Amino acid sequence: MTSNSTFVTPVPTFEGDFVLNEVLPLESGEVLVNPKLHYAIYGRLNAARDNAVLVCHALSGSAEVATWWPQLFLPGGLLNLERDCVIGINIFGSCYGSTGPTTIDPETGKLYGPTFPLINVRDIVRAQVKLIDSLGIEKLKLVIGASIGGMQVLEWAIQFPERVARAISIGVAPLGAMGLGLNHLQRQAIMLDPTWNGGYYEPGQNPTGGLALARALGIISYKSVPLFEQRFNRKPNRNGDENPWISTSAGQNGRFDVAGFLDHQGEKFITRFDANSYISLTRTMDIFDPVRAHESPYLAYSRIKAHLTLVGISTDWLFPPEDIRSLAAIIKAAGVRCDYREMASVHGHDAFLVEPEQLVKLLTPVFE
Amino acid sequence: MTSNSTFVTPVPTFEGDFVLNEVLPLESGEVLVNPKLHYAIYGRLNAARDNAVLVCHALSGSAEVATWWPQLFLPGGLLNLERDCVIGINIFGSCYGSTGPTTIDPETGKLYGPTFPLINVRDIVRAQVKLIDSLGIEKLKLVIGASIGGMQVLEWAIQFPERVARAISIGVAPLGAMGLGLNHLQRQAIMLDPTWNGGYYEPGQNPTGGLALARALGIISYKSVPLFEQRFNRKPNRNGDENPWISTSAGQNGRFDVAGFLDHQGEKFITRFDANSYISLTRTMDIFDPVRAHESPYLAYSRIKAHLTLVGISTDWLFPPEDIRSLAAIIKAAGVRCDYREMASVHGHDAFLVEPEQLVKLLTPVFE
Repeated sequence: MTSNSTFVTPVPTFEGDFVLNEVLPLESGEVLVNPKLHYAIYGRLNAARDNAVLVCHALSGSAEVATWWPQLFLPGGLLNLERDCVIGINIFGSCYGSTGPTTIDPETGKLYGPTFPLINVRDIVRAQVKLIDSLGIEKLKLVIGASIGGMQVLEWAIQFPERVARAISIGVAPLGAMGLGLNHLQRQAIMLDPTWNGGYYEPGQNPTGGLALARALGIISYKSVPLFEQRFNRKPNRNGDENPWISTSAGQNGRFDVAGFLDHQGEKFITRFDANSYISLTRTMDIFDPVRAHESPYLAYSRIKAHLTLVGISTDWLFPPEDIRSLAAIIKAAGVRCDYREMASVHGHDAFLVEPEQLVKLLTPVFE
Repeated sequence: MTSNSTFVTPVPTFEGDFVLNEVLPLESGEVLVNPKLHYAIYGRLNAARDNAVLVCHALSGSAEVATWWPQLFLPGGLLNLERDCVIGINIFGSCYGSTGPTTIDPETGKLYGPTFPLINVRDIVRAQVKLIDSLGIEKLKLVIGASIGGMQVLEWAIQFPERVARAISIGVAPLGAMGLGLNHLQRQAIMLDPTWNGGYYEPGQNPTGGLALARALGIISYKSVPLFEQRFNRKPNRNGDENPWISTSAGQNGRFDVAGFLDHQGEKFITRFDANSYISLTRTMDIFDPVRAHESPYLAYSRIKAHLTLVGISTDWLFPPEDIRSLAAIIKAAGVRCDYREMASVHGHDAFLVEPEQLVKLLTPVFE
């Protein structure tokens, strides 16, 4: 081990599928028949099987944790593959290997597409625990995630209190009205696309215009006003295709820099994501409510036995830090060891991906 | 005059068209041939013609000031029709009577539609001054407006300093990157509609899905996170059509209350607005920059002779109050009598329409 060597993003020691041979009941009242979880493992389980860290991904992530959150594996970072066995599990509804709209419904032999049932974060976690069981892991050393990943962390801590030692949930509380509104409009954008066809488009024939617009609007919700001011201000599009102040052959289409950026984000996304999955996962995000169907918030949160840390991001307006701070206070009042920390970042909700070094510093030391 | 009588919204004493018999050059380099301004007058000009107040409308407004800002005419309000002659002028690009995408291009004999040229606020004001000339008004007692209306106020004060005694611009500065991005995505939504056809849809055959989505997104930008929390929180849709937490026959479409509200706002709008007009006016909003083509901000703003008041709204994130406060400081530093006032409101950008009583109080007395 040379200390000055360039950091190489780790590759999984195992990547594969775990199939639940059962009819899995869902919170919605529907079921998933023999659903599949695609997962990846980095590092190795120790003999005691007490070194497992579950990293839960967000909307556009995957089981391959090191591809979307590589900095967590940096020397001195949160995760150390000499010590930890890191597990990533693709969530139901996604298009990265687990059961979702782009997989075959075993009951019909056809793609789920728009018939894929509504998935609650609780459903996801109840399936994940069976995969963790299959690995012989009794207790996770740490469950960590941001955004929809952070929702999974909270459900893990509440649903399976004996199975989680340490939990870190970043940039998440039940979505507020503004977030619910923005997600709704993103789905409407997809459904407006001329090729949408009620979700029954051919595999790979994504309604790209609608999905790109949804993603661009999503990006707006993940960033912040001050970031956009710093980065784009009123500059014309950097690719110089059009002068925004005059009419052009393209009519009214002259773009400022921020418009070029948003279009580009949309274009990048449509090659890697499925529109039905996008709809499914944003609905999962919307309906997340860890106290729903519990007798009271107190009784829900008092179940938690893990040491729980909630992290807010100062400029996040999708999940405002004050919502997360309040949530931490409520959980603490339920007798849980729960602390709140806040990232000071201009990057909005995306700060957990853009400034992971700050996040790591804020969280370290994770383990006592 | 009975002091306790119910307030009746005033009706115009005159409403009609003013045609400029000329080829009007535009900032974009294009022209408008014999363009028409639709306008309304409330009250009467006095003999000295020094009692004229110009009220400039915003994106979805019209010349009929009293229909969209009735509270300004309330007893003790800003406007008093016993004293003032109030003028409203529909702006180029709109669909309420003035030349815009829904009118005939005299050069082709066909609807302008998507060929309508890009309009700068400066173009609008240069045409308005000719209408004011035609009425024999040398100096406007007051020019007031909010949003795009406030942009007109600033251009009036800069372009025609001798013609404005008092100027009040509400909720406006040059649009920042977040606003430019949101407007861009609204136009993209319209253009995504299957019936858009490059803007060459039949008159009255609006691309309604796209326009409704654009409006809903616009509404998001005019409101605020705290307002949405107060009003909608995580409540299910009040019309009870679907339970957002379960799958339904409508698949993933269960709506929370905020989604029902946004959809309703979109549906209301499509019956009264034109999609090409929406594109045109949001572009006009985007390109507003009162110092553009001036040698310096100082030289632009030092032209102003009116007493100018800028108003910010505490929760406005489309035009953040800090941007307006900075603008006021810059204008003041150019030697202008300029003051800044701030509405404390949860209503975001829309506060000027939703809380006009507070606005009136904040501004009174307008005239010394």
